[in-house]
Amino acid sequence: MAVPGHRLDRMFNPRTVVVIGDKGPGYMWLHNNLPFKERGGNLYSVQIDPAQIPGIEALGVQNFTSLKEVPEPIDYAVVAVPRQVAPRVLQDLIDVGAGGAAFFTSGFAETGEELGIRLQRQLQEMARAANFNLVGPNCMGLYLPKVGVRFAVDAPVADDGRIAFLSQSGTHGIMFSLVCGTLGLHLSRAVSFGNAIVLDVSDYLEYLAADDETDVIAMYVEGVRDGRRFFETMKRTAARKPVLVWKGGQTAAGARATMSHTASLAAPQAIWDGMMRQVGAIPTNSLDETVDVVQALTRVKAVRGRRMALLAQTGGQSVSITDAFAKAGFEVPRFTERTYAALAEFFNIIGGSYQNPLDMGGTIQGNPEVLDRILRIVDADANVDGIAMEMSAMFGVRQWKRNPQAFDAMLDVLAAHRERSEKPFLVVMHPAHEEAWLAENRRRLTDRGLAVYPNFERAALALARVAGVLR
Amino acid sequence: MAVPGHRLDRMFNPRTVVVIGDKGPGYMWLHNNLPFKERGGNLYSVQIDPAQIPGIEALGVQNFTSLKEVPEPIDYAVVAVPRQVAPRVLQDLIDVGAGGAAFFTSGFAETGEELGIRLQRQLQEMARAANFNLVGPNCMGLYLPKVGVRFAVDAPVADDGRIAFLSQSGTHGIMFSLVCGTLGLHLSRAVSFGNAIVLDVSDYLEYLAADDETDVIAMYVEGVRDGRRFFETMKRTAARKPVLVWKGGQTAAGARATMSHTASLAAPQAIWDGMMRQVGAIPTNSLDETVDVVQALTRVKAVRGRRMALLAQTGGQSVSITDAFAKAGFEVPRFTERTYAALAEFFNIIGGSYQNPLDMGGTIQGNPEVLDRILRIVDADANVDGIAMEMSAMFGVRQWKRNPQAFDAMLDVLAAHRERSEKPFLVVMHPAHEEAWLAENRRRLTDRGLAVYPNFERAALALARVAGVLR
Repeated sequence: MAVPGHRLDRMFNPRTVVVIGDKGPGYMWLHNNLPFKERGGNLYSVQIDPAQIPGIEALGVQNFTSLKEVPEPIDYAVVAVPRQVAPRVLQDLIDVGAGGAAFFTSGFAETGEELGIRLQRQLQEMARAANFNLVGPNCMGLYLPKVGVRFAVDAPVADDGRIAFLSQSGTHGIMFSLVCGTLGLHLSRAVSFGNAIVLDVSDYLEYLAADDETDVIAMYVEGVRDGRRFFETMKRTAARKPVLVWKGGQTAAGARATMSHTASLAAPQAIWDGMMRQVGAIPTNSLDETVDVVQALTRVKAVRGRRMALLAQTGGQSVSITDAFAKAGFEVPRFTERTYAALAEFFNIIGGSYQNPLDMGGTIQGNPEVLDRILRIVDADANVDGIAMEMSAMFGVRQWKRNPQAFDAMLDVLAAHRERSEKPFLVVMHPAHEEAWLAENRRRLTDRGLAVYPNFERAALALARVAGVLR
Repeated sequence: MAVPGHRLDRMFNPRTVVVIGDKGPGYMWLHNNLPFKERGGNLYSVQIDPAQIPGIEALGVQNFTSLKEVPEPIDYAVVAVPRQVAPRVLQDLIDVGAGGAAFFTSGFAETGEELGIRLQRQLQEMARAANFNLVGPNCMGLYLPKVGVRFAVDAPVADDGRIAFLSQSGTHGIMFSLVCGTLGLHLSRAVSFGNAIVLDVSDYLEYLAADDETDVIAMYVEGVRDGRRFFETMKRTAARKPVLVWKGGQTAAGARATMSHTASLAAPQAIWDGMMRQVGAIPTNSLDETVDVVQALTRVKAVRGRRMALLAQTGGQSVSITDAFAKAGFEVPRFTERTYAALAEFFNIIGGSYQNPLDMGGTIQGNPEVLDRILRIVDADANVDGIAMEMSAMFGVRQWKRNPQAFDAMLDVLAAHRERSEKPFLVVMHPAHEEAWLAENRRRLTDRGLAVYPNFERAALALARVAGVLR
């Protein structure tokens, strides 16, 4: 629910939210936060431009021309004013005792300009002196899906989120939320914190470590100001829950780009990597990889060994799934003799193979009971620590379109296996040429709690990250 | 058109195709090849089981109960009979002087069984003695999209294919065709050759090297019988056109899997890699990577240097696109002063940056003329050898759904740039949460000849493979 006594607790659990300086025709920030009002929160606007006010009121949001007129204590504010005005708004926020504020406003140190640097220093000094919770500037602020505070109009509103995301990039924060959404994975809390001139990643991390609504923390970071504090906070946090770190600016050219983006000075990558290993964080290298690992952490049973059973639907894919998992550091052992004996009872030797990888061939297509039998036999094998299985769209989709019950029946078998088994289980569904169908139907697997990946390499890497094989 | 005098020429340019032993209810092989009949070829069936014949005739295909009754000379046959019958069918094919035949039949050496090994040896000896063009066995045979001979019922029929694919795996051959199809890339000829007991990859390669309908050759190989001949043929072929090689069984576990798949003995990977470098082939590691490189080879202008201009739509993506290209071996240089001066004339400094990477921000959204101006300026920069550009679905799709003309206008700008520029140009369109929209609309870019990738990493790796940076 909350972390009583923490300085960010009020901002992270707001009753009253104010949007300052939003403008038409889009009124982006009010639109983003309308769900907060719908869910019972007090959503207000502060805007002094008379031309903008009718549009704001048309949204059903009460507007004030001064922050001091807002009738309730302000827990969180989004500031979208020109940069020159930012210090005055900050002073008002401090004066009314607001719980915190995100400055969407940009044009500060990241521009390299003298004016921007001076304005940023001014904001920083004011906020520090007042111990004010300034998020950003040059950021998208908070995403609190349960109460309806959002940083993007298509970010899901949902009550079941257990994943937190901290991001120095607004885009990556939003895209993480959206891509997770397509997989039915929801967030507990997220922060896009941009230039991080007052509150830094360590402050948010400290809160999320204690937050009992958050099971997994992922982050995109370009640089940290206080390395020692970050190191200590990471270490304490990673001891309590998994922490994924996607570092931006891993190359010399990328590090130059972070300078223009958030005025971050990147640490040399080798030093950063060593630090991540020491604190027990899971390193990732892209948005997709971060989402993949989060999916493995939330949907796959604990990894206890490297010995994988690999089930494919053709000989060629048997080779590919094996290369992918072996390259990621897994073993593909022979099954026990008992398993081979059990498989031999019903397996058609022609056009399939029951080694490991197990080439299931056409055997399972339209035969959920055969798939069920295979999964039970392989799951019981003492040489097997986990199972990865290909579900081929090439074979399946034409049939599933004609006969949706065949797809349902297969899902039932997979979901029952996942419930029953204590070993990791991953499904790979290829896009092939059936991309549109998969976009519509992948959710039917994830709704049953299954971890689904678009290719062998991504599945293998995600599991390896969780297993620490590649760390 | 053809390679007169080559032993495979007749099979690769058939006038008469016979399917032997196809069975209902699916009649897979006849269905696969109906387009051949529709395009004016002679398609016949040979089936002795009276129960199967009405179903065959219902497809409009004439059936014979003996190969010797077929009225025209047989250029190519697909054999789908039980393995024990395979030698007898092969004898008939030899007797009538067929141009070649693919044996879909499996259950040979790949099973490790004595009977399978013996039958395979029998086929091999018979075909060799008769100098017969046996494709396979344990394969999907030929895919000739122009004449309508196919190895899968959803593989495209198309006249404009310039890419050939050779595959020891039927699945990979079919999936390559299907995934290429989603990108509007068509094939000239493909062969799934399975156990390759008579014709080997070198035979097909030799034909494709001389084939003036084929510009690019890609292949999936698990092992080759005659390494010396393969080496020489590859070297000669790669000197004439690009050859991509995706090797299956790169790991010890993967190599074991190739043994059960096509009875291939894989070479140690280090030796294989050295050999590929020496012959000038482009190595790839998965289906997606192979398709990505083919797209770069067919749609991107020749790579003359490593200095990339990177155009993104936000700060976070600017960092990510830079890390991706820098990791793949490219440079991201400063532009010339002239470029900065030209950009400064219209670039909004707040919320964007015109370093390289160039953070175009919201500047281009709904402003095709601004995008056009940026592309012209950057293209003219003497420090720039090529351009990669993010086209963000996160920003765009909501607008493009409302206003399809905005998407059209952007496409026009991109297509005109591609025509005009002599430098490589790659577009990255993120799936984000708009996967279904992208599945429908990606073709609109590829139809204009644009090379489109789903993320920065894949775009960077594809260009690096072409550039030889990673070779």
